[in-house]
Amino acid sequence: MSRSELRQLVRSQLQMLLTQGNLQGAKALLVPVQPVDIAEAIEGLEESQQVIAFRLLSKAEAIEVYEHLDSAIQQALIQKFKHQEVLDIVDQMSPDDRAKLLDELPAKVVRRLLSQLSPKERQATALLLGYEEDTAGRIMTPEYISLKDYLTVTQTLDRIRSLANASELIYYLYVTNASRQLMGIVSLRDLVVSAPDKTLGEIMTRDVVCVHTNTDQEEVARLIQRYDLLALPVVDLEQRLVGVVTVDDVLDILEQEATEDIYALGGVQSDGDNYFQTNLLTVARKRVVWLLILLGTNTITSEIIRSQSELLTKVVALAAFIPLLTGTGGNVGAQSSTVVIRGLNTDEIRDLGPLQVIWREGLAGLLLGTFLGAIATVYFYLSLQNAFAVAFSVGISLVAISTLASVAGSSLPFLFRSFGLDPALMSAPFITTAVDVAGVLIYFKIARLMLGL
Amino acid sequence: MSRSELRQLVRSQLQMLLTQGNLQGAKALLVPVQPVDIAEAIEGLEESQQVIAFRLLSKAEAIEVYEHLDSAIQQALIQKFKHQEVLDIVDQMSPDDRAKLLDELPAKVVRRLLSQLSPKERQATALLLGYEEDTAGRIMTPEYISLKDYLTVTQTLDRIRSLANASELIYYLYVTNASRQLMGIVSLRDLVVSAPDKTLGEIMTRDVVCVHTNTDQEEVARLIQRYDLLALPVVDLEQRLVGVVTVDDVLDILEQEATEDIYALGGVQSDGDNYFQTNLLTVARKRVVWLLILLGTNTITSEIIRSQSELLTKVVALAAFIPLLTGTGGNVGAQSSTVVIRGLNTDEIRDLGPLQVIWREGLAGLLLGTFLGAIATVYFYLSLQNAFAVAFSVGISLVAISTLASVAGSSLPFLFRSFGLDPALMSAPFITTAVDVAGVLIYFKIARLMLGL
Repeated sequence: MSRSELRQLVRSQLQMLLTQGNLQGAKALLVPVQPVDIAEAIEGLEESQQVIAFRLLSKAEAIEVYEHLDSAIQQALIQKFKHQEVLDIVDQMSPDDRAKLLDELPAKVVRRLLSQLSPKERQATALLLGYEEDTAGRIMTPEYISLKDYLTVTQTLDRIRSLANASELIYYLYVTNASRQLMGIVSLRDLVVSAPDKTLGEIMTRDVVCVHTNTDQEEVARLIQRYDLLALPVVDLEQRLVGVVTVDDVLDILEQEATEDIYALGGVQSDGDNYFQTNLLTVARKRVVWLLILLGTNTITSEIIRSQSELLTKVVALAAFIPLLTGTGGNVGAQSSTVVIRGLNTDEIRDLGPLQVIWREGLAGLLLGTFLGAIATVYFYLSLQNAFAVAFSVGISLVAISTLASVAGSSLPFLFRSFGLDPALMSAPFITTAVDVAGVLIYFKIARLMLGL
Repeated sequence: MSRSELRQLVRSQLQMLLTQGNLQGAKALLVPVQPVDIAEAIEGLEESQQVIAFRLLSKAEAIEVYEHLDSAIQQALIQKFKHQEVLDIVDQMSPDDRAKLLDELPAKVVRRLLSQLSPKERQATALLLGYEEDTAGRIMTPEYISLKDYLTVTQTLDRIRSLANASELIYYLYVTNASRQLMGIVSLRDLVVSAPDKTLGEIMTRDVVCVHTNTDQEEVARLIQRYDLLALPVVDLEQRLVGVVTVDDVLDILEQEATEDIYALGGVQSDGDNYFQTNLLTVARKRVVWLLILLGTNTITSEIIRSQSELLTKVVALAAFIPLLTGTGGNVGAQSSTVVIRGLNTDEIRDLGPLQVIWREGLAGLLLGTFLGAIATVYFYLSLQNAFAVAFSVGISLVAISTLASVAGSSLPFLFRSFGLDPALMSAPFITTAVDVAGVLIYFKIARLMLGL
């Protein structure tokens, strides 16, 4: 087969596979083909297919193929990244497929692509770039200035004057080498106070705090907060600079993360949308899951109470204290899980191991339970006119339930986190179940002992 | 009486009043005295009394008196601001007294004072400066550069080179007039891109976002967040620049405020300390108030249940559903108050009035209650073997309690806010009380109707 016949075959095969939606097949087809031939085959495709085909290339191939496209086609390709039909195709892939099919884009293409998109479009195309949700890749901006290390301070200041209108973020300048790898950082402050004939290589800070495109956005926020940065550079796996995350974006992220935690603790699902701008059915959907779980939990509690009907018929006063006991247990458990969950999310717990935290909380629960139990025993003894057995049952149960609730409330968040689950979301239902069910069982057991029934 | 006799008298009177701790008297004594004589009287006092006497002067007087002190004494006075015994005296005044006795300090003194204190000392002496807790005055730093408007770009750059090592915060330069009033801002970016012979007056931004020393720190954080600022200038009542708040401090504030909200919603008091580094008694103290309130609430619920003993003796199955009803009511109420409180704190509610929010939440509660009520009725009807009246009572009660809980949970935060109270702190106990008490009353009423008792 002649070279031109081969090229013809690749082009028609590629077109067919893409039309069928067989992306895996198309990816496999292109592996043995020369970059220059891939470039030609891509140029022969219809618009929306060009981008998809390009995205199926491995990163190394994509760099070479991109170089072989002429600059008008390069430009057109970048433009097509924001076409809705292309975005839809990528959106419909499963996350696994996306990870398998879409390699990182070359840093050069990312830069060109991002710089032509509005922040909104950037958000929409982030998926196409292969960056998962809540990662640095999704929140970075291309508005940074990268320069070479041989430039002098004077040359740099001249350069900044011409660039500054295009870029807001000139407080940090990034020094990159020929392969676009991040070598160091020069702050505008360093630049202004340095001798005019020094080079960037001489004055730059080489110990740069940076993150990868797949770093979690919460980790990005923590780093900016810890090091008091105005911006944080984002690099790809080969240390090539692809974007920066700025401190004002981080303010929004921290607020959003706090809202998610608060919603989770309050039993409301959060999807980042403004709760007050969603319709009533969405509101109900966000709340009903949690309520159903608790209804289920409470049903178990009800069954246990019903199983004690003969005891309750004999001493009807016992029924009056069930809400008090489960309520107090729930509150003590919520306190413990609140401080532990927030502590995990803000690194406040750092110095203590899980066992130390759980032990501390258990002691606090015992202390609180003893105090509340003593008050309750005295109060109910007086108000129940000498029904000491009932009052004392309530008091002892409060001690046991508070201790149990503190231990459950502080240990479950650690447990869920070790399984990779979000403690804020998962803890409350389990703590409530444990405390309610165990609480009424403890109460009835103690009451039977005290009353001799 | 000769002038020198008068001075002698003032000095001895002042000493006596200060020793007695009669600050109000001391303040009144100094009102008619000439600044130069006050300066001399102050110089004659012992060290710790000098500062107190100086702080009793009105702002206008303080400026003049300060100018009459010779520079060694000025310096010594500033040093004394951090003496522990002086801080203790101010700390022991009631907030009202402080507001009455301590006028704002002159901007010049504030600047000199702040620049000689470590961040820790600054925190400690903030009270002495007359700034209340959680205000811009407490979190501002003196590390800013203020310049006059007639300086050229070149002169400014030279100045920055000599100042930069002393100050980290050179990304914004503040332009002030002869009376230290803030006239405009020049960013380092503006400076670098401007022609060298322009003056600061020509290139500065006159429309400056700034706050007063008594602005709440949360408001400061919101402004920095909204306008994407790196720093925000703080001025006194005469528009004189006294400090700046930087974005990295704001990150910490937002996190601290979120922690406070999360703790409040979880029923734990927050005082800004790390929960995990406080001792067990402090932990118990932070949690016991809330638990006692809820114990009180639950006692009322218990009393209501006990008052229905004869009903419960007849139909003991009714008792089994009380925790389910109060639990669900509590959860629905917590959801509503969570979203409203977070919405108020993050301005998400902006577009909706309180009545619209409460109406929406009421509808959501009705919707959720109907859904949960239908499920509960069917389930308990089947599991209770035809005790339809009880199952239906539970279902109907769920509808009523969910609606009530949503309305209470969404309206109380607005109510507390309009009284100037913190909704996050105040809402939960009141919502729980309302829902628990009203819930069991509704339940027993409906059960009696359904059972014909």
